[in-house]
Amino acid sequence: MYVILVYDIGEKRVGKMLKHCRKYLNWIQNSVFEGEITEVKLKEMVHSARKIMDEESDSLIIFKSREERWLDKQVVGLERMSTDNFL
Amino acid sequence: MYVILVYDIGEKRVGKMLKHCRKYLNWIQNSVFEGEITEVKLKEMVHSARKIMDEESDSLIIFKSREERWLDKQVVGLERMSTDNFL
Repeated sequence: MYVILVYDIGEKRVGKMLKHCRKYLNWIQNSVFEGEITEVKLKEMVHSARKIMDEESDSLIIFKSREERWLDKQVVGLERMSTDNFL
Repeated sequence: MYVILVYDIGEKRVGKMLKHCRKYLNWIQNSVFEGEITEVKLKEMVHSARKIMDEESDSLIIFKSREERWLDKQVVGLERMSTDNFL
């Protein structure tokens, strides 16, 4: 499935979360990731993300689309997509 | 159509962009909006967003899905969705 992930994480934890999400998805903008992922890998990512987060104050939202082609993407201005999204 | 909008805007312009996007979509998290919108209204929103942005350094990404039901949403931690998303 194709997912878009956005997070709003406290400053002390955001570096760790960035590193964590980069193992699974492509960083495309400040606090925003996208990419293809399996249900199992998504569960694994969310499970360990919870350990990083303070669930009282941090927020993580994942939009799941069964197919990438059901999602059109329009970029206005600078495209910040980084290519170094692999370990 | 249903859209998810994320932006990364310079500090001097972000307040204006927040106010602008709120006229069209629901704010759900820092720099993230979602909601139902027509093609015409989306064009209008992007057109005026460009006037606010510095397209050399700011970034706006819009994911469009023809139907909301093609998108599942999972929230982990705090759900920051604000209710005052109307003019």
